[in-house]
Amino acid sequence: MKIEDFFRDVPNFPKEGILFKDITPLLLNPKATQFCLDSLTNSLIEKKIDKVIGVESRGFFFGILMAQKLNAGFVPVRKPKKLPYKTISASYALEYGTDSLEIHVDAIQPGDKVLIHDDVLATGGTAEAVCKLVEQLGGEIVQVNFLMELSFLNGREKLAEKDIFAAVTY
Amino acid sequence: MKIEDFFRDVPNFPKEGILFKDITPLLLNPKATQFCLDSLTNSLIEKKIDKVIGVESRGFFFGILMAQKLNAGFVPVRKPKKLPYKTISASYALEYGTDSLEIHVDAIQPGDKVLIHDDVLATGGTAEAVCKLVEQLGGEIVQVNFLMELSFLNGREKLAEKDIFAAVTY
Repeated sequence: MKIEDFFRDVPNFPKEGILFKDITPLLLNPKATQFCLDSLTNSLIEKKIDKVIGVESRGFFFGILMAQKLNAGFVPVRKPKKLPYKTISASYALEYGTDSLEIHVDAIQPGDKVLIHDDVLATGGTAEAVCKLVEQLGGEIVQVNFLMELSFLNGREKLAEKDIFAAVTY
Repeated sequence: MKIEDFFRDVPNFPKEGILFKDITPLLLNPKATQFCLDSLTNSLIEKKIDKVIGVESRGFFFGILMAQKLNAGFVPVRKPKKLPYKTISASYALEYGTDSLEIHVDAIQPGDKVLIHDDVLATGGTAEAVCKLVEQLGGEIVQVNFLMELSFLNGREKLAEKDIFAAVTY
């Protein structure tokens, strides 16, 4: 079974000229989802992960599945004003302007072993912001984990000292 | 174990006068999450569910966990312009104005047994819109399933002919 066989190419989404990799065919197939979950977590079973972070919104899907499989807590990192309790935030650059992400202040305890998950590693700006949030709360980042890496966008450069895993690399 | 012990009251979110039930303490505890997942799915194991729908965004968490547990496909229902492929949409009333939700046209096949999940049953408008989407694609709604029901908002009235389950009722 190949995970990438369950990604669907959608041209010109979210804007003209982008070939978007749609993961919904993967989610629609429970055996392929289980296979992908196993691929994402195989090297992590022995790592005693305390918290798995899923980045809004597509990072929520495998984020929470990994958390349950690893018997770890699940932590959503969200866009501004979506989390109800006290938060800290970190901003990251967009093509034009900036955006930011928030985490609940009580989501990570100092010394927690943290796995960060998102669907796509592109330029790395989002993942870099999430790393800042985890480190600000005293967490230890064990791995930054993706369904797919778009290697031609060089996102790894922004995460140079982190352990990075991607189930599929383009 | 009581699921509601893992909900946190946050006053004045998302606006003044609302007492918001924050589910992130539940997600942070893997044993409580497993207990809640079991409560949500216990009556469904024999129902041969084909698809589980999770409604953006807080419905994604237990939606995908239930889908994997029931060996069913997971289908995200999302806000406008978030799903990349061909969609149909249904609108619902807000306090002021309307909003709408979308589903991929290939997410449900005619005759599919469908479980709809969201975090909260409030006025029922969102769930009613999701029911319309499923029925438009020919799916059979087995249950509309929630983490919690705010019974004083009478959301059940909008879903009168549906089987409704809520893990916690206020």
